[in-house]
Amino acid sequence: MADRRTVFFISDRTGITAEMLGNSLLSQFEDFEFLRETVPFVDSAAKVQAVIRQVNETAVRDGRQPIVFSSVVDEAASEMIRRDVHALTLDLFQIFIAPLEAELGSKSSHTAGRSHGIANSNDYFARMDAINFTQTHDDGAATRDLAKAQVILVGVSRCGKTPTSLYLALQFGVRAANFPLTPDDFADHKLPASILPHRARLFGLTIHPDRLHRIREERRPASKYAAIENCRHEVREAEELMHRERIPMLDTSAKSIEEIATTILHRAELARHIY
Amino acid sequence: MADRRTVFFISDRTGITAEMLGNSLLSQFEDFEFLRETVPFVDSAAKVQAVIRQVNETAVRDGRQPIVFSSVVDEAASEMIRRDVHALTLDLFQIFIAPLEAELGSKSSHTAGRSHGIANSNDYFARMDAINFTQTHDDGAATRDLAKAQVILVGVSRCGKTPTSLYLALQFGVRAANFPLTPDDFADHKLPASILPHRARLFGLTIHPDRLHRIREERRPASKYAAIENCRHEVREAEELMHRERIPMLDTSAKSIEEIATTILHRAELARHIY
Repeated sequence: MADRRTVFFISDRTGITAEMLGNSLLSQFEDFEFLRETVPFVDSAAKVQAVIRQVNETAVRDGRQPIVFSSVVDEAASEMIRRDVHALTLDLFQIFIAPLEAELGSKSSHTAGRSHGIANSNDYFARMDAINFTQTHDDGAATRDLAKAQVILVGVSRCGKTPTSLYLALQFGVRAANFPLTPDDFADHKLPASILPHRARLFGLTIHPDRLHRIREERRPASKYAAIENCRHEVREAEELMHRERIPMLDTSAKSIEEIATTILHRAELARHIY
Repeated sequence: MADRRTVFFISDRTGITAEMLGNSLLSQFEDFEFLRETVPFVDSAAKVQAVIRQVNETAVRDGRQPIVFSSVVDEAASEMIRRDVHALTLDLFQIFIAPLEAELGSKSSHTAGRSHGIANSNDYFARMDAINFTQTHDDGAATRDLAKAQVILVGVSRCGKTPTSLYLALQFGVRAANFPLTPDDFADHKLPASILPHRARLFGLTIHPDRLHRIREERRPASKYAAIENCRHEVREAEELMHRERIPMLDTSAKSIEEIATTILHRAELARHIY
């Protein structure tokens, strides 16, 4: 049986950064099972006391100290947590503030809520604009404004176009359209007419037929659409079409949405509107 | 004029974690202007050498050393970067590995690509399922499967329902539907019939009329829809309706999508399907 440990992600903001870095670190210890608890918005003395109590009760219950990933920006709160919890506390934020202050020759403002705030309204509108655009241009739904797309993802049904487009819009503010390649296009041996004028901004996604088969089976079990022979045929035809048309191509089979989106962002040199 | 510094985010994976933590740290230094450069997928000796060269050329060009946020998992690559760049290097990953190894009494595997990989296929399907559901149930588009929604966001047009739903699906794997409250509903003084059976899972978003006006003006300038009087009227009616129906409510005006989504996740105690 795997060794079990309780892990807390504590933040005076959303906790998303602490979760991301913490999980990335924990994934390096494969023989353990981690029970995760995120405690966000710890932004008052009462909440600091409450989370310290919660961690310490867990230590007693577990019979061993929990692991705490803290990204608390407020210096006093962060110190109190480090001092009073019975846990291995890894402070993801404070530890880097001192060297940054020294390098920049400037004191930090120690204020929570800046990075995911909406201080910068241009960012907000760029993000909304990208999300609207991407929603409207999902799966070939609209073709009118394709000239405004920064990138148009193409590929067979269920190869990852929609989640990748949404991630590009949400995370990077990129206006990403997507367009399916279907058996009709393969029969014609050419790209759909509506995306032809935008060939320079096409980016192809492909996928291993076995994986496509599994994904389609989840959606329409025992259908022709999901059959392995059909998946093999569609993938082969799509890859040939993209190859012939010199469309850059990425295999999504072993990749997460984050990896696919980041790869496209860099390979297609898309301008991001959010940092 | 603001003091300008070049910042690199270097990773052997997507760089998203390094960007998030790095930007959160940088946001504490308001008097500086940071030029950001992300270098992801630094996963070979050649790429390590290339990024070291890039940083050092920047140091010469800028006449001062850049700041490097590194989240490189590979120990040798990470050491080489720390040793050879002329920069303030903040290693977001390695610094925490040693205390974790000591606490767990176990060596880490030092392998890149675990946290955003697709090792866990259940996670992948849960995420896809949530994204599909959320896309299908955006803006009241489908009402058939609302019983399967974990949460149904309600509010006036442009108060943040769509981006919040998408973020809940992408980041947490939550099946989030959303449904608009319109002037028709206000005239009827009751909730739309199709969401009435799901009242326990409704969550209201509201917004300051001034902000709503600005957002709607971006979309339909000088329309009745965007007029400040109309925004005031719709927001007042929507808030009254939600109050009367005892629907929990969150003001999105000064919040980012991350903050809105995280608040709902915790306040509505939604089960997340991705960590």
